[in-house]
Amino acid sequence: MTSIENYVEANRSRWLDELFHLLRQPSISTRDEGVRECASLLSRFMTAAGIRSRILETDRHPVVYGEILREGKPTLLVYGHYDCQPPEPLEEWLSPPFEPVIRNGKIYGRGTSDNKAQLFTYIKAVEALRTCSGEIPLSIKFLFEGEEEIGSPSLDPFVAKHKELLNADLVVYSDSHIHESGRPLLILGLKGLLYVELTVRTSPTDQHSMRATSIPNPVWRLVWALSTLKGRDNRILIPGFYDDVLEPTPLEREAVARIPYDEGTLLRHFGIREFLPGRKTRDFYYNLVFEPTCNIAGILSGYVGPGSKTVLPAAASAKMDIRLVPKQDPDDIHRKLRAHLDAQGFSDISITISQGTIRPSRTPIDHPAVAIIEESVRAVYGADPVVFPNIGGSGPNYIFTETLGKPCIVIPHATYDQNNHAPNESMDMEGFFKGIRTGIAVIQNLARRL
Amino acid sequence: MTSIENYVEANRSRWLDELFHLLRQPSISTRDEGVRECASLLSRFMTAAGIRSRILETDRHPVVYGEILREGKPTLLVYGHYDCQPPEPLEEWLSPPFEPVIRNGKIYGRGTSDNKAQLFTYIKAVEALRTCSGEIPLSIKFLFEGEEEIGSPSLDPFVAKHKELLNADLVVYSDSHIHESGRPLLILGLKGLLYVELTVRTSPTDQHSMRATSIPNPVWRLVWALSTLKGRDNRILIPGFYDDVLEPTPLEREAVARIPYDEGTLLRHFGIREFLPGRKTRDFYYNLVFEPTCNIAGILSGYVGPGSKTVLPAAASAKMDIRLVPKQDPDDIHRKLRAHLDAQGFSDISITISQGTIRPSRTPIDHPAVAIIEESVRAVYGADPVVFPNIGGSGPNYIFTETLGKPCIVIPHATYDQNNHAPNESMDMEGFFKGIRTGIAVIQNLARRL
Repeated sequence: MTSIENYVEANRSRWLDELFHLLRQPSISTRDEGVRECASLLSRFMTAAGIRSRILETDRHPVVYGEILREGKPTLLVYGHYDCQPPEPLEEWLSPPFEPVIRNGKIYGRGTSDNKAQLFTYIKAVEALRTCSGEIPLSIKFLFEGEEEIGSPSLDPFVAKHKELLNADLVVYSDSHIHESGRPLLILGLKGLLYVELTVRTSPTDQHSMRATSIPNPVWRLVWALSTLKGRDNRILIPGFYDDVLEPTPLEREAVARIPYDEGTLLRHFGIREFLPGRKTRDFYYNLVFEPTCNIAGILSGYVGPGSKTVLPAAASAKMDIRLVPKQDPDDIHRKLRAHLDAQGFSDISITISQGTIRPSRTPIDHPAVAIIEESVRAVYGADPVVFPNIGGSGPNYIFTETLGKPCIVIPHATYDQNNHAPNESMDMEGFFKGIRTGIAVIQNLARRL
Repeated sequence: MTSIENYVEANRSRWLDELFHLLRQPSISTRDEGVRECASLLSRFMTAAGIRSRILETDRHPVVYGEILREGKPTLLVYGHYDCQPPEPLEEWLSPPFEPVIRNGKIYGRGTSDNKAQLFTYIKAVEALRTCSGEIPLSIKFLFEGEEEIGSPSLDPFVAKHKELLNADLVVYSDSHIHESGRPLLILGLKGLLYVELTVRTSPTDQHSMRATSIPNPVWRLVWALSTLKGRDNRILIPGFYDDVLEPTPLEREAVARIPYDEGTLLRHFGIREFLPGRKTRDFYYNLVFEPTCNIAGILSGYVGPGSKTVLPAAASAKMDIRLVPKQDPDDIHRKLRAHLDAQGFSDISITISQGTIRPSRTPIDHPAVAIIEESVRAVYGADPVVFPNIGGSGPNYIFTETLGKPCIVIPHATYDQNNHAPNESMDMEGFFKGIRTGIAVIQNLARRL
């Protein structure tokens, strides 16, 4: 047996070949192009690495499940997604999206960073560990879904149905990207999301605006209603909105205070003069991580073309995305919004939920696994990881933290300029190998210390 | 000499032929199609009726001016417009727009009611009076413009420049339509208009909405600002907005109280349950006539397509039409709006005036000419006219009441179903002849009593 470090070095070329094989297989979930073929191919790669793998059906695209079980050892669940975004617009790609190539140290191709190269790191980590040490020191399970790029509609029911099969002590996955500074990054949670459309109709048809003296205008109703939702001090006014907001712990505050941050640079980047106040501070990252939002994403009514039209509109609507932090519950916030509008005299304004609600997630920063992963990442990257108790974006992380009820840590290896969802998507080649080495370290350290 | 009544009866067929000749000549001002040819043709018809006519230039389309001067007699100025709207969509016309035909007692063709047939009534009234009595009993001037359908851009400067030439004791014109009940209608004024676009930009580009904790959202700024402009009681909150509103006189109130009106029917027509309150009453016509408006005609920001997009918009804007009553001044209201937004902390919201402002107009209902016209119309129609001190719509009536500084009365002869600006525009044939008889009576009665 050779040392794991040497094995990794010796197999770089073959692993890239295998990754390219996987990347050449399209798996465009939104139009069901190559998805099942990709699931089969991935399953074969897992089997070749010594993982017992099988395809499990959902209502739409299959899950590729795998496991290596070690009685009495802690269990790690690795999540990932083998589907990818459509490659269009094709003319903007410098090389064909499903013919991966390396340029300037980056692997270019659709589905590289998002998420095939990143999930592949775990398979290769297992291969390296099994080859070099004969066995995997803990139980490890794999859940690779084929619907992430279409919003993971099957994931929550799948996890709920297979709680026993997926039971684990910790969930990890590698998606997203490392910090802009080049330092590694760990994500312990994501925000929840309640996306609603408020609509009000005051008359059957548009009217000549001369009748504005007597006929109600839906824009006024919407404006008056919206103005009761958030104060000019940026505080959300829906009664009870903040009731369930979890106070950050001192450790979480410290983690956020350590996020590299230069206010002047950031203000210049966004082209604004100052940041809005939160409830407690104007600090960008404190508010991004710990404060919920109530954002108007769109508003439309009446005539909005060039020039003027004197019309009294019949209907008006606004789209709002409300991002939630632990332990806010989107259904509860929805009820509070409805109750508030009713109490304010706006029962005529309807609320439609525009996409499935997302619950917030946040793995406690003092969970023992966090320090173990931090140390593993630090060893590979030679730098302290930036740790986000949760990021500002929303996603179905809660399926692991709430539905499965387990801690979940995201360990990205792509770089900031990965162009995911865009032409010329790339995965940093060294990031891919660092990912494999991180996977090895994580498995070894968890086995020793969790 | 024959009696005027007999002359009118005897010439119906010829006058229709002449009107059709005028209607066959397109005069589409917005694309300068046949406008000058129509001006020449109209001028020839005036000359043939014994009117000294000439073409006067403006920056765009010419004015057809005419006069018959009688030393020491009162002077009547007749206004009208010989231009017309484009006929499109052509496929919806039952007969070609510039080939007038009579169907079911209506003359169909582009420019019939709006405004060739209605202005033609005055030329034929003059012809009848001159032929039957040898002379016109007062001075009469004609101002027929060719830009009404493009907003009369030259009219105000033209009138200001030619105040001496156009000097008169009374201005009349026949546009718009009689009351839905079939009763004649007199319009003594129109509302003013300040049309503004409020725009606010808070950052150079749209942002991911997760940054809503720290980056300002222009929709919130616009919503907060708009909500300070009008209360839920429908009262406009711009300080000083109502300062110059003229209190209606008892006579004006009585006229409005006599407008045929069934609240239930009107509510059903508009598909609403109740009318908004004004400052003093919920009465539809009282508010339509005497109260100014502050209407949001359109609002737009961010993502307004199907489904959801989590975006923090960079800019937002709203179009507002503010209709004014005498003696409100659009420039003054514009200043008050700006001052109010500044005082409320919204100096970042810009105000752009989207079209030329329109001053309100209202000829005093107790002006002697009003009773004379009422009596003339009553004699022809055999019914009391409905009198609007001003209508709810806006228009450049102020050019006569303010720039020229003379009373101005609108005497419509078209019917409610005239389809002006739409396919199958029509002029009621009997309305055309009633118009000629009204013109004769107006000239005779004004000569005797003004």
